[in-house]
Amino acid sequence: MAIDTGDTAFILICTALVMLMTPGVGLFYGGLVRRKNFISMIALAFIAFSVVTIQWVLFGYSLAFGSDIGGLIGNLEFFALRGVGMGGEGIPDLLFMVFQLVFAGLTLAIVTSGVAERVKVGSFIVFGLLWTTLVYDPLAHWAWGGGWAAQLGALDFAGGTVVHISSGFAALALALVIGKRVGFGAYGMEPHNIPMTLLGGALLWFGWFGFNAGSALAANGLAANAFVVTNVSAAAGALAWLFAAWIRGKPSSVGMISGAIAGLVAITPAAGFVDAMSAIAIGAVAGIICYAALLFRVGRGLDESLDAWAVHGVGGVWGALATGIFAVAAVGGVDGLIYGNVSQFFIQMIDVAVVVVYAFVVTFVLAKIVDMTLGLRVSEEEEYVGLDISQHGESTQV
Amino acid sequence: MAIDTGDTAFILICTALVMLMTPGVGLFYGGLVRRKNFISMIALAFIAFSVVTIQWVLFGYSLAFGSDIGGLIGNLEFFALRGVGMGGEGIPDLLFMVFQLVFAGLTLAIVTSGVAERVKVGSFIVFGLLWTTLVYDPLAHWAWGGGWAAQLGALDFAGGTVVHISSGFAALALALVIGKRVGFGAYGMEPHNIPMTLLGGALLWFGWFGFNAGSALAANGLAANAFVVTNVSAAAGALAWLFAAWIRGKPSSVGMISGAIAGLVAITPAAGFVDAMSAIAIGAVAGIICYAALLFRVGRGLDESLDAWAVHGVGGVWGALATGIFAVAAVGGVDGLIYGNVSQFFIQMIDVAVVVVYAFVVTFVLAKIVDMTLGLRVSEEEEYVGLDISQHGESTQV
Amino acid sequence: MAIDTGDTAFILICTALVMLMTPGVGLFYGGLVRRKNFISMIALAFIAFSVVTIQWVLFGYSLAFGSDIGGLIGNLEFFALRGVGMGGEGIPDLLFMVFQLVFAGLTLAIVTSGVAERVKVGSFIVFGLLWTTLVYDPLAHWAWGGGWAAQLGALDFAGGTVVHISSGFAALALALVIGKRVGFGAYGMEPHNIPMTLLGGALLWFGWFGFNAGSALAANGLAANAFVVTNVSAAAGALAWLFAAWIRGKPSSVGMISGAIAGLVAITPAAGFVDAMSAIAIGAVAGIICYAALLFRVGRGLDESLDAWAVHGVGGVWGALATGIFAVAAVGGVDGLIYGNVSQFFIQMIDVAVVVVYAFVVTFVLAKIVDMTLGLRVSEEEEYVGLDISQHGESTQV
Repeated sequence: MAIDTGDTAFILICTALVMLMTPGVGLFYGGLVRRKNFISMIALAFIAFSVVTIQWVLFGYSLAFGSDIGGLIGNLEFFALRGVGMGGEGIPDLLFMVFQLVFAGLTLAIVTSGVAERVKVGSFIVFGLLWTTLVYDPLAHWAWGGGWAAQLGALDFAGGTVVHISSGFAALALALVIGKRVGFGAYGMEPHNIPMTLLGGALLWFGWFGFNAGSALAANGLAANAFVVTNVSAAAGALAWLFAAWIRGKPSSVGMISGAIAGLVAITPAAGFVDAMSAIAIGAVAGIICYAALLFRVGRGLDESLDAWAVHGVGGVWGALATGIFAVAAVGGVDGLIYGNVSQFFIQMIDVAVVVVYAFVVTFVLAKIVDMTLGLRVSEEEEYVGLDISQHGESTQV
Repeated sequence: MAIDTGDTAFILICTALVMLMTPGVGLFYGGLVRRKNFISMIALAFIAFSVVTIQWVLFGYSLAFGSDIGGLIGNLEFFALRGVGMGGEGIPDLLFMVFQLVFAGLTLAIVTSGVAERVKVGSFIVFGLLWTTLVYDPLAHWAWGGGWAAQLGALDFAGGTVVHISSGFAALALALVIGKRVGFGAYGMEPHNIPMTLLGGALLWFGWFGFNAGSALAANGLAANAFVVTNVSAAAGALAWLFAAWIRGKPSSVGMISGAIAGLVAITPAAGFVDAMSAIAIGAVAGIICYAALLFRVGRGLDESLDAWAVHGVGGVWGALATGIFAVAAVGGVDGLIYGNVSQFFIQMIDVAVVVVYAFVVTFVLAKIVDMTLGLRVSEEEEYVGLDISQHGESTQV
Repeated sequence: MAIDTGDTAFILICTALVMLMTPGVGLFYGGLVRRKNFISMIALAFIAFSVVTIQWVLFGYSLAFGSDIGGLIGNLEFFALRGVGMGGEGIPDLLFMVFQLVFAGLTLAIVTSGVAERVKVGSFIVFGLLWTTLVYDPLAHWAWGGGWAAQLGALDFAGGTVVHISSGFAALALALVIGKRVGFGAYGMEPHNIPMTLLGGALLWFGWFGFNAGSALAANGLAANAFVVTNVSAAAGALAWLFAAWIRGKPSSVGMISGAIAGLVAITPAAGFVDAMSAIAIGAVAGIICYAALLFRVGRGLDESLDAWAVHGVGGVWGALATGIFAVAAVGGVDGLIYGNVSQFFIQMIDVAVVVVYAFVVTFVLAKIVDMTLGLRVSEEEEYVGLDISQHGESTQV
């Protein structure tokens, strides 16, 4: 099979779209924090992406997609991109590599939710390198590189486990290790720039088409289906959260966009397996349970600050399970629970359980190690001043 | 004819580009209003897009593209996307469906111009559902779904009537029903965040390539022509408005970007029928007459607040007529007035006249019905406070 | 060779991506200046793009890509796009034309760095028309239109000389002619809106994929290689500048994003000739030498205000030379210095030297002519008030 120019055109552009999601996360988070940490959140996203880029081309890609070692990890055959060239089947090997790279970079950016407004930038770089190597790369291998989950038949079209459960539960672990922000619970910490959050959300929604439809790795009907269900689930999630919040008060735009992200997260593993009517259900339920998860998180006094856990973690769990429920053979060749295939649902449950535990535990340990050696957290004075000034020597308060 | 990967790649990405136009409209409008309604404008755009997404996959697509009933509307054969699958001719049917979806969502977002800074969010949702069903869907059917306008031979390449005349005149009708903003004419209501408007305009210009070139439904020479004339008309419109405003005072950036939008609107119906030299004329005239329409609107004390009527409505009328004037067979197979084909120009006039009247009258009636039942407008106190706080419980004034 | 839908799809979208870079430059620059000139910087980018659009379709494209006259310039065979149609080889001729157009528009936008916060908008329009005609068009012809540099065998994949050296050294010449901003050196002129700069940088990084990978003019392995090395060099540049600045103080986000741009600039001429490991070196060195160039510029009291010279000029020189150093036949068919091909390196040096001198000298002369006739610079009072109000009658300080 030779290179197909249409498929290659599509994945090249999809890769660019997914790349844009990383600054999208930065703007989304940057609008949600206090003004004194606005620059910090955007900068962390870029730094995460840059660090992962270098890690990935040196050895991360090989760990994820090198020949399987015991179902757990890839070997180093592709170290420094040896053997990853301009040829390929359908699309160039180098293109597949960079399409996967932008997923890895984005995932680390999502994780910054758990340490928002209080992390040392240097410690985050070290943590990020370790985390991508020891959490992201194995998870990518399990799902897409021929690891145990793929062997088991677990379905994860575009990264429900690899990207969303992993980053969501990693953010939770990080938040527990680093501790609450000074004044959390005592003082309001309202979003300071909601339009930026909405702009970031728009870039995420936009880029997510590359993320999910691109995961077909071809410009075909499956990509079109993934595109459609992605948009439908996002809309259903946005409206569900909007209306759920409306019952309790006013329909906030932050709730609406969070619901859209929840819908996008939940459809991610399912996008190549379910149809548009199921996507309405998947998105609507995602909007509601992620909103409930947020309320639970706030109620417990947990400062997983920007709700990566509630939206990406819980939404990712729901999405992975929903894939086992709503999958229909006409779309992706596999039936789910509602079409009588109970075993697929159990496989999804196993996959979810292992990934939740692995991501949470390994992240917790890594965070502890970094905290005990370099220190994850800035001083209290630096936190009061804000990370923009204390970490970057910059400010938006001119 | 099978699926073509190049065409499919192109339309998949074009759909993403058009989707980005909806938040683009939100940012564009959000920068133009007063700060207290900044979030509201962006939120309305997302809400419009989400509501239309669900409407479209359930029945809107079928009303527009189902088998023709009397030239007026489609039947419900595609209800809930029955029979809309991953196969197709050239591109997957599902892809054509979602490409049309993003047009429908965008159109409703443009309409918010007419109710800016004073609409109840719940009433807007109800109105939006009705409007898309009773105005947008029929118009899409007329032009592209085999309705009377298509049968008559009216040319509308990418939505001059369907998207722009409809939204522009709908905004005018809405503005008349809902009434002027409190203090309109008495107090200055200057744009509070022009850079956001320019950013929104940039996203519109960018997305418009997907809108117009994508309307070729293939990655071919016609798409390339549409791309070129789109860019040329935008530039000509920007410069024309800039210079026209310069004669009266200073060359404002809001005028320049409004001129670019005017040029983009006007070239929309013509993009598959005219060449680049005609696009200079179409864009330049659009910049001038939309500016004149704005001055007329202000002079009459009409509070169609963000000039969807002047730019999309009047620009759309000009574009539809210009298609009949400048069309050249070498591009799209049809000659226009300047090449001696008088009848095409008359067909365009008929199409424009019917769409203007239909969009205005039906919108007016729908708006009246919603106003008399739910009430379109917030209370005066809520308007003073601003919609961000009164409707969404949020603020950018922290 | 017929039109290939995949290649056409790719270049259509790449063209849209590159178009978005122009407002990206506007936002990038807009965030770096003082608030009173925020709108001005964005408006200049749009104006540059619009003016060049009209120039290019009328005669600029023909000067660059018309049949060669003595190695120096193209003839006027394509005046008003005569003979540039919907057919072509691989991609439509019109598409190649507009892909080149968006490069030309972007280049003039970069040049505004040298006159930031003090230029008359009308004079800039006149200057821009002259500059594109007398500097950009010949340089494009030399490199890509069959001119002397192409005949000599100089390598410039995506515009290291044409776009970056030209704009960087033009900005330097302009800055020398127009003089320092009032108060430069005496008062702080800190960036007023760094998040906008980061957003602009994100759009640049995103669009650069279209810029570099699109320069393959096909959706193939070479495009994939260009995409990969672009991303790697950007990341390496971002981290290199970040760490270099960290040694001297704090790791600023403006430094990081400037480093990313430096990496993107440097890889531009090389993207079709080098591999990913070389891209790490190219980007990292770019981050460091552009940072050094900035420090040099500041140390000399030169008010080339937004460092187009340090980043685009110096980064472009480094990139053009690095192409001669790191080129490897396995990627683009040509070996560089490290593979024993000394002559290619000398060819690159000659190309760089001629372009630096030509761009600087001709720009200097043009700027002088405009300054002596129309006056390049606003009055001191207008400069104090700021260009937003004095030139555009607008403000973000409401």
